[in-house]
Amino acid sequence: MNFTQDDLVAFLQPKAVIGYYGGTIRGVSALDTAKEGDIAFFSNRKYVAHVASSRASIVLVPENFDGCHDVSRAYFKVPNPSWAFAKVCAVVEKERAPTAPTGIHPTAIVDVSAEIAPGVYIGPFAVVDANVSIGYGVRIGAHCVVGRGCHIGENTCINPRATLYANCWVGNNVIIHSGAVIGSDGFGYETIDGIHHKLPHIGNVIIEDNVEIGANTAIDRARFAETRIGSGTKIDNLVQVGHNVRVGSDCLIVSQAGIAGSSTLGHHVVLGGQAGIAGHVHIGDGVQIAAQCGVPGNVPGGNVLRGTPPMPINEANRFYVLRKHIPKLFKRVEALEKKSQPYP
Amino acid sequence: MNFTQDDLVAFLQPKAVIGYYGGTIRGVSALDTAKEGDIAFFSNRKYVAHVASSRASIVLVPENFDGCHDVSRAYFKVPNPSWAFAKVCAVVEKERAPTAPTGIHPTAIVDVSAEIAPGVYIGPFAVVDANVSIGYGVRIGAHCVVGRGCHIGENTCINPRATLYANCWVGNNVIIHSGAVIGSDGFGYETIDGIHHKLPHIGNVIIEDNVEIGANTAIDRARFAETRIGSGTKIDNLVQVGHNVRVGSDCLIVSQAGIAGSSTLGHHVVLGGQAGIAGHVHIGDGVQIAAQCGVPGNVPGGNVLRGTPPMPINEANRFYVLRKHIPKLFKRVEALEKKSQPYP
Amino acid sequence: MNFTQDDLVAFLQPKAVIGYYGGTIRGVSALDTAKEGDIAFFSNRKYVAHVASSRASIVLVPENFDGCHDVSRAYFKVPNPSWAFAKVCAVVEKERAPTAPTGIHPTAIVDVSAEIAPGVYIGPFAVVDANVSIGYGVRIGAHCVVGRGCHIGENTCINPRATLYANCWVGNNVIIHSGAVIGSDGFGYETIDGIHHKLPHIGNVIIEDNVEIGANTAIDRARFAETRIGSGTKIDNLVQVGHNVRVGSDCLIVSQAGIAGSSTLGHHVVLGGQAGIAGHVHIGDGVQIAAQCGVPGNVPGGNVLRGTPPMPINEANRFYVLRKHIPKLFKRVEALEKKSQPYP
Repeated sequence: MNFTQDDLVAFLQPKAVIGYYGGTIRGVSALDTAKEGDIAFFSNRKYVAHVASSRASIVLVPENFDGCHDVSRAYFKVPNPSWAFAKVCAVVEKERAPTAPTGIHPTAIVDVSAEIAPGVYIGPFAVVDANVSIGYGVRIGAHCVVGRGCHIGENTCINPRATLYANCWVGNNVIIHSGAVIGSDGFGYETIDGIHHKLPHIGNVIIEDNVEIGANTAIDRARFAETRIGSGTKIDNLVQVGHNVRVGSDCLIVSQAGIAGSSTLGHHVVLGGQAGIAGHVHIGDGVQIAAQCGVPGNVPGGNVLRGTPPMPINEANRFYVLRKHIPKLFKRVEALEKKSQPYP
Repeated sequence: MNFTQDDLVAFLQPKAVIGYYGGTIRGVSALDTAKEGDIAFFSNRKYVAHVASSRASIVLVPENFDGCHDVSRAYFKVPNPSWAFAKVCAVVEKERAPTAPTGIHPTAIVDVSAEIAPGVYIGPFAVVDANVSIGYGVRIGAHCVVGRGCHIGENTCINPRATLYANCWVGNNVIIHSGAVIGSDGFGYETIDGIHHKLPHIGNVIIEDNVEIGANTAIDRARFAETRIGSGTKIDNLVQVGHNVRVGSDCLIVSQAGIAGSSTLGHHVVLGGQAGIAGHVHIGDGVQIAAQCGVPGNVPGGNVLRGTPPMPINEANRFYVLRKHIPKLFKRVEALEKKSQPYP
Repeated sequence: MNFTQDDLVAFLQPKAVIGYYGGTIRGVSALDTAKEGDIAFFSNRKYVAHVASSRASIVLVPENFDGCHDVSRAYFKVPNPSWAFAKVCAVVEKERAPTAPTGIHPTAIVDVSAEIAPGVYIGPFAVVDANVSIGYGVRIGAHCVVGRGCHIGENTCINPRATLYANCWVGNNVIIHSGAVIGSDGFGYETIDGIHHKLPHIGNVIIEDNVEIGANTAIDRARFAETRIGSGTKIDNLVQVGHNVRVGSDCLIVSQAGIAGSSTLGHHVVLGGQAGIAGHVHIGDGVQIAAQCGVPGNVPGGNVLRGTPPMPINEANRFYVLRKHIPKLFKRVEALEKKSQPYP
């Protein structure tokens, strides 16, 4: 990376610039660890004290920030400092990444019946089974296993060592991280006389466009029909998605959350880390579920919930404050009881 | 699939049949997405409205169901509609699956000392180490690693990309899903002067017959002796089983549950999703632990628990109802206190 | 294993020996499953009854233990029975393990630009990318993928089927278990008009010396800068460590715990199983967080917390006792209210 301030002004088009840094910007950094020649950004209020003490040469700040006092550096006022910073990082990322290889590594095993579009990369030891179709520009990392009949859309990237069981359908521009397992059998048994008999799972998993799936996440195939992840939804690491679940578009599902079988999420739902959704329930559009919250039933759209079982966020916050005073409440009731007995 | 109603009557032997569908059944489907020519089933009361509106041509219903009114379709009354439906799905599954291959893929690495029974399939890039024994009809998927000295019983299926560390013992008819890790070292350290010294883990993992283990689940080997999963127990995805744990037979352990070291579960225990069992405790036969429940101590057989720490389910349900009224309770006590002070 | 009592006295140097076993010690065992010729240990008070009934021929006991009554066996009084037992297990471990192989398996793919020190083992189908450096004595198991630019320190052991994304740095004497994913992209998006735009992740993961990382654990790379695991810290299976997290030295992070992005842990922190730490918080030195505890904010050093949100452990224990009596408290308040109304 090798930017002058003028280069960055042209690239980021800040609303205002305060100060001037005449050197070269060579690195991206956090405010507190930056050194001269770095660009950094400020957006989380928690770290406001870091702006004044930072040694960054250019600092991206919100438009309404009024702490641009240090004459030895430049402040760029931008609508979204984090996003502006991301654009600079994207340049670094591009510089660092080697030219993306294409072609099929000689050790990969690709079934003759697979349809492979141009511009595809298939890495060492990857296994692509019968009747798979792979779209333009797809990258399949080392050690991936793509089961028979899978479809993988254009420009999708499957990182090393992910598995797709048979007949899964993955859209365009999807990113799947290492260790993710897509299409394993759902946890479905019929218990007869105490013995759990396995239910056949002949459905599949559909992953729509622009989804990202984290490391070691598991998404089970449907018993029949489909398990579906809607377009633009982002799923973090170690998440469980049960069979026949349907997730809407543009949801965020944070690490270690779990969704039990046959539940449905609307659009723009947020599940916090380690949150759990019971089976056969519906979570409406725009619902936000706090971390570790356990949800046993339906939640209408727009609710923000916390706790297990969940409460509206304000009610939960209130309860958690009062919870501390419950021991004292017992004493207060005891005192009242004593008082109310005139002749003890 | 290509069934007439008569074929299905012969195959499923319903207790009663209402109506007649003269066409061909070609698909399995949910009630609400079925089209003509599909078979569907009704068992979860939640979806009762779907029966009347369904376009399925044959509907499997419980024997006591009285909503069989639509003359354009047939209703089969069966003792267990879900299980009858599963039998039809099993036919579809069999039709769809290619002939199961046998033999050792030329890229697999199988140590010369391994004993491989007839009828075994070992997939591409699988690694089978020294002194492994593999029983009749076993399927080992691509990229599996089977450590030295492991035993794998008859007809067991290990899906692609699972790992067995050395000396694990797996019974007959076991299914292990992708990404599962069996026999990794337990989390055992001796802390001396603040430094955590690793304890050797020379035990192993025993998986009895008819067990299923989900994707990305981890089962640690014993410090010495064994970690054991009892016959017929089913373990979902992303579950943690600590070192020296002993799980009885026919348990159900739902996704993301965890069992800490040296704990024992009896038979027919159910752990809900994200439930946690502390170390060195015993959970008796038939205990049911609700989702997200954290269990710090022993639980006698037959209990049904919810909450963290857990309460008997009725007590927990009661508490969660009252919890909403606790803010008001504070106000009620305050009012009583005011009243009880005659001269404020 | 083939030890006389005298051999073991010389090896373990007990503070005192009571009794004499003249035979040969050939096995290690738990007290309750031991047979003649086994050595066992006693340290968890829960199992005190097992000492008298054990058939072990040598029992390691704490120095202050006064139940050494059985003349048919020997008791070794040692400062730390578990650790003394571990030393014996380490002998067994060494005997059992085959001579550690060295060299690069012919099926491994090692980029020509990788620097491989002497004494290294790289297993079947492992992939080592460009510009990787691997130190003396490192073992890389079958199917591992080591991304470009990674550094792996001396004597580190990466078990089969672990993945390191590009540019991660691993110190000396580190152990990484199967299925672990180090350096996957963090869960970072900029949401603009409801669309989640992926943030580039150009940072890396630094794992200091003597760290152990469990099976199927995921540690995300930093957005920029680094995610860091401090020396001597031990991480269990299925743990999530978010982007930009910094964990101090000698921490214990138990299975299925999760640490959200940008949070920092001091030294000697303990996170119980399934515990969760929110993003951007600081957990001070020596803090202990109970299992399933959800921590939304900073915790000063030395605190011991339980519950979600957490309470000091004593307060939490108190609350959980009182919680049972809350239904009765409602009734008591109701009774008081009735009483306080003179003319009902």
